[in-house]
Amino acid sequence: MVGNAEFFFKLRVYIEDTDAGGIVYYVNYLKYMERCRTEMMRSLGYDKGSIFNRDLMFVVRDVAIQYLKPARLDDELMVSASVLSVRGAAMSLRQSVVRADEVMAQGELKIACVDSAGLRPRRIPKIMAQELREAHWESGEMLWNNN
Amino acid sequence: MVGNAEFFFKLRVYIEDTDAGGIVYYVNYLKYMERCRTEMMRSLGYDKGSIFNRDLMFVVRDVAIQYLKPARLDDELMVSASVLSVRGAAMSLRQSVVRADEVMAQGELKIACVDSAGLRPRRIPKIMAQELREAHWESGEMLWNNN
Amino acid sequence: MVGNAEFFFKLRVYIEDTDAGGIVYYVNYLKYMERCRTEMMRSLGYDKGSIFNRDLMFVVRDVAIQYLKPARLDDELMVSASVLSVRGAAMSLRQSVVRADEVMAQGELKIACVDSAGLRPRRIPKIMAQELREAHWESGEMLWNNN
Amino acid sequence: MVGNAEFFFKLRVYIEDTDAGGIVYYVNYLKYMERCRTEMMRSLGYDKGSIFNRDLMFVVRDVAIQYLKPARLDDELMVSASVLSVRGAAMSLRQSVVRADEVMAQGELKIACVDSAGLRPRRIPKIMAQELREAHWESGEMLWNNN
Repeated sequence: MVGNAEFFFKLRVYIEDTDAGGIVYYVNYLKYMERCRTEMMRSLGYDKGSIFNRDLMFVVRDVAIQYLKPARLDDELMVSASVLSVRGAAMSLRQSVVRADEVMAQGELKIACVDSAGLRPRRIPKIMAQELREAHWESGEMLWNNN
Repeated sequence: MVGNAEFFFKLRVYIEDTDAGGIVYYVNYLKYMERCRTEMMRSLGYDKGSIFNRDLMFVVRDVAIQYLKPARLDDELMVSASVLSVRGAAMSLRQSVVRADEVMAQGELKIACVDSAGLRPRRIPKIMAQELREAHWESGEMLWNNN
Repeated sequence: MVGNAEFFFKLRVYIEDTDAGGIVYYVNYLKYMERCRTEMMRSLGYDKGSIFNRDLMFVVRDVAIQYLKPARLDDELMVSASVLSVRGAAMSLRQSVVRADEVMAQGELKIACVDSAGLRPRRIPKIMAQELREAHWESGEMLWNNN
Repeated sequence: MVGNAEFFFKLRVYIEDTDAGGIVYYVNYLKYMERCRTEMMRSLGYDKGSIFNRDLMFVVRDVAIQYLKPARLDDELMVSASVLSVRGAAMSLRQSVVRADEVMAQGELKIACVDSAGLRPRRIPKIMAQELREAHWESGEMLWNNN
């Protein structure tokens, strides 16, 4: 096997991400994690547009997240995503937000595939499910957000 | 004439609204102003849903805003909106955000009425235009957000 | 015993809360839950300012949230919070976001009390802990956000 | 003269940036513009941390922004910033948000330098002012956010 079953996405903390406590507003880690999932999907050829065009949407069903250390303004953070399972209309991922060698936040998310009109569960398209299960990213393919 | 051509909306500053500078993130005043416009429209019987149902949408075309004083966590702010003009597909408003007797921010906005599919300009429905021009709110009708 | 160990906070969904899927962006339910906790604390006499003044801050350590139904623009939502436990530097709460009689999202959160400078755990002040454990709100005291 | 007096910053539109109208929530263009200004300052050696360390902060005093076309999910946008003037405690910039060859939004902003404790105007440090006035970026130095 070559490559890495984990997808990485680097980002910078901007003032818009912080709160009066001087740290990243904890809610925003979920935005960071979604940016990472979006880029993971894009790296497989699925941008949000192409998913919407199939009348599908991914919605988050379940989040369990632990906050371990506070990130701050100007920090460079590395967000990761690894697919744990893809079954029927659901996908599970493990994600983390890391600064240098410290984990700031980590969690598991369950995502459901639904039709965009009625938001009813829809089986994840077979080829997409297979690609998600088998995806491996080379370090060189990691997506950098070179701020 | 009875009542007031200015609509008022009270709100509270939450941690989500602040930034690492310890003050309300300046971008969020525009959210406050939009909440006020939304409630002003609702007070005339136009919730966003009823506007969308006519295949119409209001989009902001132009904002000029001055920031005078910084609001802080826990502050109670009063947002105002007064309609300056309604012509064709466009509406102009003056808005301010006030804490006690201090103006924190004030501005003028130009809003366009567009069709929700193509975002092309559409004349503001005649009855809505008339109601906007003639609207007066009694103090007792002011919409309070009693936090 | 009189009153209710659950605190309620009503709010309105604004355009700022939605995403291109036409529903409330799932991250924002955590903002709603925090507004509710903030008002719950305020109802006991603890605004954020008074907490900061003791050099204390509450930070979220752990969130487990399930998303059951999507809320939409203009929806009126009722957010609840009930204290499950208060021990040492930590507090656990159960929260939900409800529209009419449907639960949109529900979760459990673990909140830590820290010093605002170093973000190190600090015992929740004894009187505050006791008030949190024993708090009961009468229906009439429920905090309404009368949009 | 070599280089370009305009600084460029590329970014991607994520679901967090959109609203139920299916377009980028107009308020978020101001976040994009601030990210660009932040990176422009960083390219001159001034990260937010280093500015805070001098007990200085930049706050926005005045924004005039025109919205010309709506950006959408997945769009790649190029944000620009060019310094118009630096005088005393104030700096003026022209900024735009462009998709391919279409201008989505453009504006002028006036930014004030203040002390971070009291938010009183403070002269922009002489060397910083000079660097801002004379800054030129080579195309190759443009900061890319390689999503």
